[in-house]
Amino acid sequence: MITAYEFIDKKRRGMEHTPEEIRFFINGYVKGEITDYQAAAWLMAVCLNGMTDRETVELTLAMAHSGNNMYSFGTDGFYCDKHSTGGVGDKVTLFAAPVCAACGIYVPKMSGRGLGFTGGTIDKLEAVPGFETALEEERFLSVVKKAGCAVAGQTGTLVPADKKLYALRSVTATTESIPLICSSIMSKKIVMGADGVVLDVKVGDGAFMKDEESAEKLARLMISVGEAAGQKCSAVLTDMSKPLGYTVGNAVEVIEAIEALHGKDVPSFHEVAYEISAQMLLLSGYGTEDECRAAVENAVKSGAALERMRTMIALQGGDARICDDPSLLGEIHKAKTEYPVYARQDGYISGISCEKTGMVSLKLGAGRENKTDPIDMSAGIVFSAFVGDHVKKGDLLATLRTSRDIDIEDIASEFSAVFGYCENEVIKRKNVIKVIKSC
Amino acid sequence: MITAYEFIDKKRRGMEHTPEEIRFFINGYVKGEITDYQAAAWLMAVCLNGMTDRETVELTLAMAHSGNNMYSFGTDGFYCDKHSTGGVGDKVTLFAAPVCAACGIYVPKMSGRGLGFTGGTIDKLEAVPGFETALEEERFLSVVKKAGCAVAGQTGTLVPADKKLYALRSVTATTESIPLICSSIMSKKIVMGADGVVLDVKVGDGAFMKDEESAEKLARLMISVGEAAGQKCSAVLTDMSKPLGYTVGNAVEVIEAIEALHGKDVPSFHEVAYEISAQMLLLSGYGTEDECRAAVENAVKSGAALERMRTMIALQGGDARICDDPSLLGEIHKAKTEYPVYARQDGYISGISCEKTGMVSLKLGAGRENKTDPIDMSAGIVFSAFVGDHVKKGDLLATLRTSRDIDIEDIASEFSAVFGYCENEVIKRKNVIKVIKSC
Repeated sequence: MITAYEFIDKKRRGMEHTPEEIRFFINGYVKGEITDYQAAAWLMAVCLNGMTDRETVELTLAMAHSGNNMYSFGTDGFYCDKHSTGGVGDKVTLFAAPVCAACGIYVPKMSGRGLGFTGGTIDKLEAVPGFETALEEERFLSVVKKAGCAVAGQTGTLVPADKKLYALRSVTATTESIPLICSSIMSKKIVMGADGVVLDVKVGDGAFMKDEESAEKLARLMISVGEAAGQKCSAVLTDMSKPLGYTVGNAVEVIEAIEALHGKDVPSFHEVAYEISAQMLLLSGYGTEDECRAAVENAVKSGAALERMRTMIALQGGDARICDDPSLLGEIHKAKTEYPVYARQDGYISGISCEKTGMVSLKLGAGRENKTDPIDMSAGIVFSAFVGDHVKKGDLLATLRTSRDIDIEDIASEFSAVFGYCENEVIKRKNVIKVIKSC
Repeated sequence: MITAYEFIDKKRRGMEHTPEEIRFFINGYVKGEITDYQAAAWLMAVCLNGMTDRETVELTLAMAHSGNNMYSFGTDGFYCDKHSTGGVGDKVTLFAAPVCAACGIYVPKMSGRGLGFTGGTIDKLEAVPGFETALEEERFLSVVKKAGCAVAGQTGTLVPADKKLYALRSVTATTESIPLICSSIMSKKIVMGADGVVLDVKVGDGAFMKDEESAEKLARLMISVGEAAGQKCSAVLTDMSKPLGYTVGNAVEVIEAIEALHGKDVPSFHEVAYEISAQMLLLSGYGTEDECRAAVENAVKSGAALERMRTMIALQGGDARICDDPSLLGEIHKAKTEYPVYARQDGYISGISCEKTGMVSLKLGAGRENKTDPIDMSAGIVFSAFVGDHVKKGDLLATLRTSRDIDIEDIASEFSAVFGYCENEVIKRKNVIKVIKSC
């Protein structure tokens, strides 16, 4: 049998691990027989020497098997999961889950809390009065059955190996590795055990994948890993060179998602949310691509999607009235300060920096710097103008919201730099860059 | 200021560290503010992305400054250190130290214990009855002054940063890196503070450096680091594709070294030991290269070198009679079993595998597998035939010695594979491959 030393050494030399070796490593690491410093050396060797697709599949499966599967869904329908690699203003789950539920598939969505620019999906949902995100397995499954969808936080540790490795990667500068990112995401998706997974892979300055090439590589790798585990998978590369939609924050994002369920055409968000929903239906075998798109449109127009949202919120203890009047949420989470930011010059808006927007959102209180930081539900940014719009000096660009006692003028001045201007009309980038189906 | 994360990340991206960053890392690691897993990730990044010469110099200096300098030599002469990167049958210090002392330079040699094939130099010297290797600073310096040379073990930790990093490297497969090897060796040489250092860099299957190119790279790097710290340095690349001399073990190696001091021409050992000694004299400014070589010859022929050995052994509490009659040592450390190994065929000996010889030596009891293992002083191998010799089937090739209760026939059979044969005369490799002077 190989030793931990030989295992690390093999990757240092750029060699391929056998499936047995990878299982030896993951089991040993979870048990504490392989130390953090040995794992850290190996992770760095993986970052620099890579892994083959075969190794990535084996690593992900070994990680997925490191704990006990928590959820077992029935065979009474198609259970579809989704995952986003993370971006600024990403509220797609809040739209796609009820829409797909309305079309007859189950969407059992376990979501993490956010660390960074804004909260995660469950943080955002906690803006809804009474909404509970910590559901026991039985209740979670019951909401899924009744509403067709449920969004809850992870209870316990789904994948112990990922929990340990992720924490180690985040302090050893070994996060930037496509095989490691893939195994971290997919081990959790595999354990969740849905029939299908649609992966929303963000591309751009606000995303982990800065360019289309690496995003596509990650997408294809995740699909092949998911398929190796018996899941149907597809991926949608979506633009994260600007925020997704007109809102960034928590309460403001829930409001925007509900407005979209009411049929409002929110620029950039609309295209992505409809595409992800359609791809989820397509995976389930609902029909042709055109039929799936039409079903999504219809679920919104008919009010069926909104009805699912209402049911889900009610079953999870939340005040479902916000589905009919989302402005209630704005009243409940009224920001102490609302600060308008105006255009400094005439011109077309050539860009809205995602990363800078995210940093400002964090400073306003919408996100967390540390795991235990509280989130200011009222905080966030609401855009009034977007990429491609022509503005005149003095036009309202956005409103900053916060209930924190901070130097808002200072932050507003920082926020002004988020916008790029140009004299000529801007060619709008596609929000859905590419759909990647089963490899 | 940089964080540990940014420091690791910079090396992962293949960038060059500033001197401040390297000092930040070494200080933080020694203090425990930077963790083992962060250091391990960085070490692997160094193994794979390398370091510039400038970084290596800074790393070595930062390591050297991580503890308190222990020894301060006088200005009354030239203090010359030597270092060997390690090989099988390496007893050069036992020859070069008294020879150089006889020529008027001081050789204050701190030596580690061996882990592996045989003991280290101080383990070997402990075969001499009464010989003490744990000397307090004052006594060590006093022996150096009186005998001209002293060989003792390190008391305490000379270089805390090296101690921690070396231990970490040995369990994270990050040993094979020329900059890291260089910094480990040279940080200790710099702290010892001798005026000059001659580096014996071994090349071949029994050495860490398997080829001349990497050995020369390491040699040049060590010289430039030593010079940056104000030391005179040169390096000798020597052959380790076969054992050095006719003996491998502990008592047997001391006997061979003393025989060499008596003027015996021990094949392969003679050439290396004389060259290292001459280079040490040359560094001290003793004279021209020819004058230095002549001085070494004369120190042996005149008996002056042996006299220094006698003085050193006596001052360190040992029985100096073994200098006049080294066979005494053989009687004291008489092996329970002496097992002859004969040639299996006619032919020229084309090679003697260093690595296999070392493994057999370890099994006979001459080395340590673990730090606390006892060493069998009587154990070892004495060759009767060497590379290039013509032998007939049944001729004595070597005698295996051990006092352990082991299956000697089994080991002898393994040992037979150490020898390679060929039909044609063998061109003998040079034992001194190259001398590299100040860069």
